[in-house]
Amino acid sequence: MELKNDRLLKALMGQPVDMTPVWMMRQAGRYLPEYRQTRKQAGDFMALCQNPELACEVTLQPLRRYAFDAAILFSDILTIPDAMGLGLYFAEGEGPKFRKVIRSVADVEALPAVQVQDSLSYVTDAVSLIVRELNASVPLIGFSGSPWTLATYMIEGGGSKDFRRSKQFLYDHPEAMHLLLTRLAQAVTDYLNAQIKAGVQAVQIFDTWGGILSTPAYHEFSLHYMQQIVAGLQRQQGGDTVPVILFTKNGGQWLDSLASTGCDALGLDWTVDIGSARQQVGTKVALQGNMDPAILYASPVAIEAEVKRILSSFGSGSGHVFNLGHGITPEVDPDHVSVFVDAVHEFSAQYHR
Amino acid sequence: MELKNDRLLKALMGQPVDMTPVWMMRQAGRYLPEYRQTRKQAGDFMALCQNPELACEVTLQPLRRYAFDAAILFSDILTIPDAMGLGLYFAEGEGPKFRKVIRSVADVEALPAVQVQDSLSYVTDAVSLIVRELNASVPLIGFSGSPWTLATYMIEGGGSKDFRRSKQFLYDHPEAMHLLLTRLAQAVTDYLNAQIKAGVQAVQIFDTWGGILSTPAYHEFSLHYMQQIVAGLQRQQGGDTVPVILFTKNGGQWLDSLASTGCDALGLDWTVDIGSARQQVGTKVALQGNMDPAILYASPVAIEAEVKRILSSFGSGSGHVFNLGHGITPEVDPDHVSVFVDAVHEFSAQYHR
Repeated sequence: MELKNDRLLKALMGQPVDMTPVWMMRQAGRYLPEYRQTRKQAGDFMALCQNPELACEVTLQPLRRYAFDAAILFSDILTIPDAMGLGLYFAEGEGPKFRKVIRSVADVEALPAVQVQDSLSYVTDAVSLIVRELNASVPLIGFSGSPWTLATYMIEGGGSKDFRRSKQFLYDHPEAMHLLLTRLAQAVTDYLNAQIKAGVQAVQIFDTWGGILSTPAYHEFSLHYMQQIVAGLQRQQGGDTVPVILFTKNGGQWLDSLASTGCDALGLDWTVDIGSARQQVGTKVALQGNMDPAILYASPVAIEAEVKRILSSFGSGSGHVFNLGHGITPEVDPDHVSVFVDAVHEFSAQYHR
Repeated sequence: MELKNDRLLKALMGQPVDMTPVWMMRQAGRYLPEYRQTRKQAGDFMALCQNPELACEVTLQPLRRYAFDAAILFSDILTIPDAMGLGLYFAEGEGPKFRKVIRSVADVEALPAVQVQDSLSYVTDAVSLIVRELNASVPLIGFSGSPWTLATYMIEGGGSKDFRRSKQFLYDHPEAMHLLLTRLAQAVTDYLNAQIKAGVQAVQIFDTWGGILSTPAYHEFSLHYMQQIVAGLQRQQGGDTVPVILFTKNGGQWLDSLASTGCDALGLDWTVDIGSARQQVGTKVALQGNMDPAILYASPVAIEAEVKRILSSFGSGSGHVFNLGHGITPEVDPDHVSVFVDAVHEFSAQYHR
């Protein structure tokens, strides 16, 4: 079935559009009262992820309010380590935690391979349901965490300030780290291919913690595995290509390398100047981003000014997907999101004539 | 009196040295048992900063253990807002906090000018004492927080995860933000000039939070004020120049702009490739850094390998001061610091022949 709104897919492939498409990282999230309601109903965050009907419901909620050009699967980046038996849970107000952690070579070797069709069927079921409910209105984006990002959570047992254990592991046991990352890259590849098979029309890899590495460590332990995944994705579906977006937070220094992985688009955090980024990568990849999510706390006037500045910095022509430079935060006023989305559409048309 | 060891000053000015000088951000700090002892004796962190004898003692402690090529004044980056009457305190295990915060234009206008000779004499007294005690063995580095970094703490009332209030203030009240930053830049200039007058032989401006801004906001609200400070410093003392180091954490995308401020050296965080940075800035400025502090958790073998890698990445010639890419963390084994410092000296000699 042909998409009614294919701006996102076109822009990701560098093809002309009538206005710049826009979606938001964490658009299905806590800033929406209806999301908080559904989450309450589910019990906890993991129960919400694992219930395809409720995951579908929260995926669709932001599209009922705003003119987003895409839906993104509601799930968590840590479903894979959970499927490997680490026991993901969310302590109230504390972020993700694992019951079991990886601290030795033996721990890595003992990790089971992930059978996506068994342990992650709740995700592919949610994808099928969402695609049906979207009814070809807008495309659905699937996603996964990057191998390095997943590894940090598996080693630290949750979030971290200085990633002490992950880095100690990396520098003292580089071979074990490579073994862990190889297994994760395989699992992520299978996982994203299963999402594609179930119907997602684009995928994004979230490399939330690649930016805490030194330049050579980033290339060896994060970028390399993302490149492997890109190469292993079944991106031709019927006559269509499923575009792949790579997003390394704090990766602004490595755009050249990221653009050479074979991906279709780069997510930019808000510190990057999108105009300079475009000069750097040329037409090799599309660019997605990159408004500071904190600007949504400011007045509508300030939000519109920043949207205009970013549009003007990117300039005329195709290859831009508007987004925030990171996920929207829970305390944002939902009315400010309308201002943001509408501003992107209204003020971008002139750049596509 | 002529310095016995002037490697640091020479390297900062791009002059030849026999081996690469090394010091560490937060080298006088909690990883040292003798520091923890002195801090206990002082009562709390602020009492330690405000007691010139004890501040001198902890400044000298790391030099008794390690072959550092410089001492750095023991103090806090937040002494200026404290001197403006905001009431700095440290809640146990929580980081810095202010009793009063800046939330409006009126709050900014009500801020008193800082009279360094009155309210910050405890710092200049400590400088005089340390210089006397160092007895020209190594140079003493003075420092301050950058205006933007100080402003974030003054507005947030402490540390922050998303800097929501600072950014809201910046985007909704840019003129008030500029007024605040102008006053802070004046205070920092006076403060650093007073430190220079009291005897510090180099100064560093810590822009810890410049890297959370978008590129244009960074230039307008952080870099601009650091440049003003650089221009206002009395750097000619007798026949000597007092070098100025600028350090923007997560500023790797902005090295060109930083190098054009008139400063003598740039501090690099560990994500930057120091070889590429050198290519970028040429001989305009020296470079300081940039080993990931987390590598000090790894084995001596891994620490030495990383020191060698960074030395080789910088390559032959002058203009490199070895340092960590951020402050040393409290849980590091003090023996690992010896490995680090000695490795820099031992393995760098070949690059200075």
